[in-house]
Amino acid sequence: MSDDKAAVVLVSGGLDSSTVLALAKSQGYSCYALSFEYGQRHKSDVVFAQRIAAAQGVVEHKVVRIDLDAFGGSALTDLDIDVPTSPTEGIPVTYVPARNTVFLAYALGYAEVVGARDIFIGVNAVDYSGYPDCRPEFVSAFEQVANLATKAGVEGQHLTVQAPLIHKTKAEIIQMGLELGLDYAETVSCYQLDSEGRACGECDSCRIRQEGFRAAGVVDPTHYR
Amino acid sequence: MSDDKAAVVLVSGGLDSSTVLALAKSQGYSCYALSFEYGQRHKSDVVFAQRIAAAQGVVEHKVVRIDLDAFGGSALTDLDIDVPTSPTEGIPVTYVPARNTVFLAYALGYAEVVGARDIFIGVNAVDYSGYPDCRPEFVSAFEQVANLATKAGVEGQHLTVQAPLIHKTKAEIIQMGLELGLDYAETVSCYQLDSEGRACGECDSCRIRQEGFRAAGVVDPTHYR
Repeated sequence: MSDDKAAVVLVSGGLDSSTVLALAKSQGYSCYALSFEYGQRHKSDVVFAQRIAAAQGVVEHKVVRIDLDAFGGSALTDLDIDVPTSPTEGIPVTYVPARNTVFLAYALGYAEVVGARDIFIGVNAVDYSGYPDCRPEFVSAFEQVANLATKAGVEGQHLTVQAPLIHKTKAEIIQMGLELGLDYAETVSCYQLDSEGRACGECDSCRIRQEGFRAAGVVDPTHYR
Repeated sequence: MSDDKAAVVLVSGGLDSSTVLALAKSQGYSCYALSFEYGQRHKSDVVFAQRIAAAQGVVEHKVVRIDLDAFGGSALTDLDIDVPTSPTEGIPVTYVPARNTVFLAYALGYAEVVGARDIFIGVNAVDYSGYPDCRPEFVSAFEQVANLATKAGVEGQHLTVQAPLIHKTKAEIIQMGLELGLDYAETVSCYQLDSEGRACGECDSCRIRQEGFRAAGVVDPTHYR
């Protein structure tokens, strides 16, 4: 079974992946959204992902509970590590071990089951240059795995991992999303949302987002606490 | 943090992965065993994996509960698909979508956290020629991903995915394990174990195992029902 207009889209509820979902939809894909609950501090992300997925009219939205926290090692899942509120050098402590590899592996399984040939991921090498698994060479290498790991690949139906934001600035992403009619008030980027889903305005992710709206010359509609 | 004698070993409780664990141990690796509960029919596998891991003196054994069954699509996780009891052509229905990709992705995360540079997996291209994710080219492609996805790779510490059984026959694997002192009565391969952990003797996996013991010229110590 293969459907050349079906796509699996990784959706976190954040600005980038929401833009990717709107983009895939605008390109005529029937979208299967995939989100994760992985012991992250900001669990209400999933609620935002569900709203965005519904607003974009996805075929289906799967939320997979995964055990990434079993290994610890990141400020996003390990409560003993503080989320930094000032820029850091090198690979940030908010990096989750093998996160995008795990996410893409699940997306690949989902793509196989629904017969999708495209997987969309909102990674970005500009703002997240410290994360090894946000680089184009990582995405290409995973695409290679996807084609070798699956029935579809073996049967000659090329699988593609699309990372349409990879070389864009946050301002460019925001402009693209606004043109696609996306309401960014419905998306969240903060590493430490409060229980009402309001952003801290201080973490790396909030600062990159704020600078993006500023550079795009549009009002930041984010709900801050 | 990196420990050049630490290794993550994927351990299912089956014949192949138990042999790989014994082999890694005999080569002087400090082994971190990793198993999964993924909605498979044969849940008692994990009990066997725990016994084997303990018997081989692993540093730690993590059992990760994953949601592979959320997608369905395999006789091993989807209770609406019967496990075949006669040989089938092509990719078997017991193939789980993207299973080894998901397993290796978790192993990669675990390796990053414990500072291991080696990941061992018991895939075999001889007996499981119908599974795309048991082929050498798949393993090589994943190794590429591992090195691009991680801090260790970025920092120039080469990560290796070792699949030492990939070209071996079942009989050769059994002979290797016996030389390493492995007790195969403690391992299980059956796709449909009963509640007491006894094998069916009829599924593909049981038949391959039985033929392996026959070809190796040793008594099959498996507990059949």
